[in-house]
Amino acid sequence: MAGTTAAEAARKQDRDASIILIESSPYHEYSRCGLPYFISGEVGQSANLFLNKRAYFDSILKVNLLLGTSVEKVEPTRKTVTIRAPSGLDSLHYDSLVLATGATAVDLPIPGFSKPGVMKLRTLDDAEAIKKAASRKGSAVIIGAGLIGLEVADALTANGVTVSVVELLPEVLPVSFDPSMASLVRKVLEAKGVTFYLGKKVERIVGFEQVEGVIVEGSLIKADIVVASAGIRPRNELAKDASINVGRYGGITVGPRAETSAPDVYAAGDCVEISNRLISENRPIQLATVALRTGEVAGANAVGGDERLPDLFGNTSSSICHLEVSSTGLTEGEAKKFGIAVLTAESSSYAYAPYYPGGGNLTTKIVADAKSGLILGSQFVGPGAAGWGNLVTMMIAQGLHISTLAYLETSFSPPVQNFWPSPVVAARRINRLLKLKGPSV
Amino acid sequence: MAGTTAAEAARKQDRDASIILIESSPYHEYSRCGLPYFISGEVGQSANLFLNKRAYFDSILKVNLLLGTSVEKVEPTRKTVTIRAPSGLDSLHYDSLVLATGATAVDLPIPGFSKPGVMKLRTLDDAEAIKKAASRKGSAVIIGAGLIGLEVADALTANGVTVSVVELLPEVLPVSFDPSMASLVRKVLEAKGVTFYLGKKVERIVGFEQVEGVIVEGSLIKADIVVASAGIRPRNELAKDASINVGRYGGITVGPRAETSAPDVYAAGDCVEISNRLISENRPIQLATVALRTGEVAGANAVGGDERLPDLFGNTSSSICHLEVSSTGLTEGEAKKFGIAVLTAESSSYAYAPYYPGGGNLTTKIVADAKSGLILGSQFVGPGAAGWGNLVTMMIAQGLHISTLAYLETSFSPPVQNFWPSPVVAARRINRLLKLKGPSV
Repeated sequence: MAGTTAAEAARKQDRDASIILIESSPYHEYSRCGLPYFISGEVGQSANLFLNKRAYFDSILKVNLLLGTSVEKVEPTRKTVTIRAPSGLDSLHYDSLVLATGATAVDLPIPGFSKPGVMKLRTLDDAEAIKKAASRKGSAVIIGAGLIGLEVADALTANGVTVSVVELLPEVLPVSFDPSMASLVRKVLEAKGVTFYLGKKVERIVGFEQVEGVIVEGSLIKADIVVASAGIRPRNELAKDASINVGRYGGITVGPRAETSAPDVYAAGDCVEISNRLISENRPIQLATVALRTGEVAGANAVGGDERLPDLFGNTSSSICHLEVSSTGLTEGEAKKFGIAVLTAESSSYAYAPYYPGGGNLTTKIVADAKSGLILGSQFVGPGAAGWGNLVTMMIAQGLHISTLAYLETSFSPPVQNFWPSPVVAARRINRLLKLKGPSV
Repeated sequence: MAGTTAAEAARKQDRDASIILIESSPYHEYSRCGLPYFISGEVGQSANLFLNKRAYFDSILKVNLLLGTSVEKVEPTRKTVTIRAPSGLDSLHYDSLVLATGATAVDLPIPGFSKPGVMKLRTLDDAEAIKKAASRKGSAVIIGAGLIGLEVADALTANGVTVSVVELLPEVLPVSFDPSMASLVRKVLEAKGVTFYLGKKVERIVGFEQVEGVIVEGSLIKADIVVASAGIRPRNELAKDASINVGRYGGITVGPRAETSAPDVYAAGDCVEISNRLISENRPIQLATVALRTGEVAGANAVGGDERLPDLFGNTSSSICHLEVSSTGLTEGEAKKFGIAVLTAESSSYAYAPYYPGGGNLTTKIVADAKSGLILGSQFVGPGAAGWGNLVTMMIAQGLHISTLAYLETSFSPPVQNFWPSPVVAARRINRLLKLKGPSV
């Protein structure tokens, strides 16, 4: 997605540039985020996940798309890449290069991990394999309770598979949600029959020819499928081999124009480390939206543009068992990790007019800087979560004080939004705490 | 709603204040916005629309609630109000007074307007009468195609009534939507069988004992019910009699603390005229959310608080035939009326991932100041409309440039929100237009 977006931005910037897009898999751009919804059956054929027809690249985008072609080597000093195409090795010259190598799902150091029936969900082929296995019903263990792990749990349950989730940390969604908010998501999955093993480790994967289960704290959880969903890491091998700087988390280091440490080499997407004003470090933000935003800057600049990366805060949303969730900026846990003193508030209320039937609660958690009163992050669970996540992302990006949310003129309509939405109530709580502390510095 | 909110805010500010709440109808606070959804059948009994039980006022709020009691006269110099209670005339002294007299639905100067079967929708009793008439099926003519008129059209259609809407102006929703956006809402009602007579006038209402129809351009439209929904006007009689200033549109003039021109008299809700930084005039903004926000300021200040009215921009939302809509700030039409040069953009795209089935389009119109590039207003039709309306309201309130929306980091999730939501696309269009014009002043 980052690569294709970069190619599109380059074409928009320069009608005549010669653009080559190199892809090791046999597939042109498709939506990875759609894979769980392909497994669930909501999306129909996997072919629907392709965002354009193959012909788009030649006839409209005018890009030379090399599928099934891997890059063996990048040489910034010579401005060449060595490729292994179906027809053999070749060397290509470039004036500028965009690295959009993405990320790979992490292999876990668990005995039995290579057994048939142990899967990861990263590619279209992975999704096809999981869907095929799910069609036999049976039972599945998912290792890792991040957003993708839970989306897969939801999707497999929809297929009639009995699902267990094993997570090392004490609550689900440990990266982007604080425990009290994450527990709301866990509960809807539990209500659908998913069993959670939290704060627990898969000790080994057992079975003879095929997976038969996993051992957790000495006990067997039977499973016909094991899906490992314990994170992804940037694919940085080409960059490292070319002595291009990578950061602490293995992501390629980029400057404000998406430029790497090598001249005329840019990078975008899951393989880069991103910074923002909230935190003192760079880190990968491996989201489709970040791939799009870094991709368009890298692509435009590669052909002479002068675009800047926007501040990116990791605004993310999902829908688990039809429960909308979103998270942006810092969680309380992250803020503590970075040594930022925060005030937080949680609030939950019915999403619609109290008398309007059939809806659910919108639950809010807001994190604000205890000194300045600036909003730093939010988590929402319930109807409207994504919209509020966009709003708070704008507040973070613009450095707005919590009071602007506390006194926001929200709209009211019985089937749409309640009088005092819970984000406003939570913001007012923080605003009162700030006032009690006296004038802020 | 403004009155009860003022009482609640006063109680929060001062635990010991003696608070009297005077209401001419037999009903304590209920949600007027819910009346169309009571008529449609979604809300069940009309009793559900009451936001608190009657006992709440005595036992929790500690407010002396006088129902069925009208105020005959306000005398700011003597600090008294004359009331007509069920027990007769009485005079009450006050230290401070909040006027929350609301608004009344406008009577139309149409021959036959007083005929039985001609109704307005303002009160619970109105709604009960309309619902009762609707239970006999038959046909209805609605005069006025504002949000409430269209909500009633939707509700009556849901009751099996054949509905026609007659609107003087050339398109529906003439106040808060520009014609191209409003037409999207009209079309969903047309698809449900509603007939529109736009740019047309009801010349007379005909029938012998009971309404039998209306005459439009010389032709008869048969109707068993006529619902007049052609606007509301501030109830300002008490204020005028007391020589309290009212504005151009008949609303009570208030300062930043919700204070009127009379000492220790505040006003809140549908009866006041509101100003904001976008426009050069005060006008009523007759929304529940404005009643709440002016009510809490008036109530707190009436007992010694020092609260300020927030800037209010008329952020409003609704759902017509399950199509979510919102509008905030200035429409293009209003901006022109006020002589503000604007740039506008419209954009429409699927609300969810392109491959995710079952949803609809989110259509956006954005209005920005052509000189400064600041956002002035927006209209949204489709899933997420209210959330985007809140976000743009914050942008207007904070004086943010269109580029902050053009480069907002939105989230993506297949069943929740698309890659490039149409508000971002529309903002980018305006941003490009601004750049083409050269640096702004």
